[in-house]
Amino acid sequence: MSGKRIFIIFVIVLISNLLATAQNQQKDMDRFTIVIHGGAGTILKKNMTPEKELEYKNKLKEALTAGYSILANGGNSIDAVETAIKIMEDSPLFNAGKGAVFTNEGKNEMDASIMEGKTLNAGSVAMVNTIKNPISAARMVMEKSPHVMMVGEGAVKFAKEQNLEIVDSAYFYDEKRWLQWQNIKGSNDLELDHSDDRAENNRKEFDAEFSDDGDRKFGTVGAVAIDKNGDIAAGTSTGGMTNKMYGRAGDSPIIGAGTYANNKTCGVSCTGHGEYFIRKVVAYDISALMEYKNLTLQEAADIVIHKKLKEIGGSGGIIAVDSHGNFSLTFNTEGMYRGSMTKEGKPIVSIYKGND
Amino acid sequence: MSGKRIFIIFVIVLISNLLATAQNQQKDMDRFTIVIHGGAGTILKKNMTPEKELEYKNKLKEALTAGYSILANGGNSIDAVETAIKIMEDSPLFNAGKGAVFTNEGKNEMDASIMEGKTLNAGSVAMVNTIKNPISAARMVMEKSPHVMMVGEGAVKFAKEQNLEIVDSAYFYDEKRWLQWQNIKGSNDLELDHSDDRAENNRKEFDAEFSDDGDRKFGTVGAVAIDKNGDIAAGTSTGGMTNKMYGRAGDSPIIGAGTYANNKTCGVSCTGHGEYFIRKVVAYDISALMEYKNLTLQEAADIVIHKKLKEIGGSGGIIAVDSHGNFSLTFNTEGMYRGSMTKEGKPIVSIYKGND
Repeated sequence: MSGKRIFIIFVIVLISNLLATAQNQQKDMDRFTIVIHGGAGTILKKNMTPEKELEYKNKLKEALTAGYSILANGGNSIDAVETAIKIMEDSPLFNAGKGAVFTNEGKNEMDASIMEGKTLNAGSVAMVNTIKNPISAARMVMEKSPHVMMVGEGAVKFAKEQNLEIVDSAYFYDEKRWLQWQNIKGSNDLELDHSDDRAENNRKEFDAEFSDDGDRKFGTVGAVAIDKNGDIAAGTSTGGMTNKMYGRAGDSPIIGAGTYANNKTCGVSCTGHGEYFIRKVVAYDISALMEYKNLTLQEAADIVIHKKLKEIGGSGGIIAVDSHGNFSLTFNTEGMYRGSMTKEGKPIVSIYKGND
Repeated sequence: MSGKRIFIIFVIVLISNLLATAQNQQKDMDRFTIVIHGGAGTILKKNMTPEKELEYKNKLKEALTAGYSILANGGNSIDAVETAIKIMEDSPLFNAGKGAVFTNEGKNEMDASIMEGKTLNAGSVAMVNTIKNPISAARMVMEKSPHVMMVGEGAVKFAKEQNLEIVDSAYFYDEKRWLQWQNIKGSNDLELDHSDDRAENNRKEFDAEFSDDGDRKFGTVGAVAIDKNGDIAAGTSTGGMTNKMYGRAGDSPIIGAGTYANNKTCGVSCTGHGEYFIRKVVAYDISALMEYKNLTLQEAADIVIHKKLKEIGGSGGIIAVDSHGNFSLTFNTEGMYRGSMTKEGKPIVSIYKGND
């Protein structure tokens, strides 16, 4: 080959590389994406009314659209994640914030965590009661304290100092959830009249709620987003499990288990049977598989949720976004309240397996 | 080559493989090992008296030997780890159990966790006060509850139900540590007479303790062991930080951050500035680097402690044992109270950099 030909080929390669880079940068500017979940569990269509379905889907769309608007306007992913989660916390539909369940001592014990992928800064609160939006308290721990995790009264005290909204515990009172608790409480309380019709009805309602559609048990909420700068953030918030043992903490406040974000790989928020998610360090494991084994986000999510977690009997799911704006909504249960919204600007929400 | 020659070569290869397998099995039966730590920090020889040094070394040897005896007699690694940690918890030398420090509200808030590598079962307690041995409570959570993590009053209640030893908070009273707290408390309390000679002396004592030798701050204890069956276990216990913000939890109760064990890879117990260990998911990351990148234990420990942790300003160290019985005692601070005991049956303990 002549020197001239080699030169021409060289120039062509150079130009096409420059074009590809420009295209990637353009693509990167458009990669902003937000995904959310409202819990995974035995959610079956046969147990759902069209009205209830619509109520869930509308609330998911509202949360997605609010987070998306922030991203579309050039806002950062931490704001988008916090905003989307607050909307779900403020709804009684999900087991977080307003809709948090009661422990076997009639208490609300809420957990939340948040992490930003650029700095690996993180914040978390566990076992808090009167904080209206636990996700905002987690963010304050990240931004305004020297700590990552704060627990119980100390965390509430800190939230007050940060002027976060504190509510009376009556705020969390939701008749349906209160009846749930009254029923289980009754089952250990011999003084309660079990022949009482109302108690019996309550029990049936509870049983239906709990065994037919597990959303009450697995109603954690979460959001993950990447903004126009390529910064990833992830957050998770939960009210725990109905009638759980007092003092039990799940994976939601645990960085690495329930929440993780790293600009190099991905952001992840989990929902499911928390004990298994802690033992399998689920959120960080997805990131580690991408970083150390060069797997794609979906390959990593499939291995962790469908193989590693299942091997030890763990059920639940994850939502995640990678550094290119690809996302994954992966679960091994019957359903997961979930949604995504990318640059196309159309909120897509689903509840059951498939796209329904 | 004739068929006969090929057959002879085949037989030779077969026999040498069988011999190698037998040798490995023999080697594996001998691989039982235990390592411990009593905290990492700015521990300098110039600030230590020979008496104090000896006191630390003797207690480390006592803990090592107790754990070793269990392993040598065919016992399991969980028992060895719990036994070694209990001895350090019962000593006022370390910031765990008896020697736990006071928060800025004059309270003890102790955390502990334990994990077994065979089943990936794990247990943890956080923010507990009157439990004499938090590591035993963590083990009870692992073995007797459906949960992995229990926090605060609920965890104490559970420990009582499991007949664990509960002590009056006066048990944790240690004059030196109480003076430490009184001093810092005084610094925020205008009613306290700062011109008081004793207060002034106390402050000096505290300053010396805290800034010259950081062991009071980083006095977490931990143990990792592999038994004759090849089962790995790891545990960690801490009293937190002097004058820490009330409600702060570090990495010690967090599976994946402060403690991790997996028979496939290794067991790890961490000590140091907990916030950084949580953000870097340190204990699990060492395991992930071994599993996903085929690094040796020491290579993985070096990357995490000397590179990844240092990049974000995190100080501390880890002790770890891999599935072949190799161990690592790695830290990026001036010193770490540490020790190891392998099948040779000789306890080796050190405090500063090098082998001193």
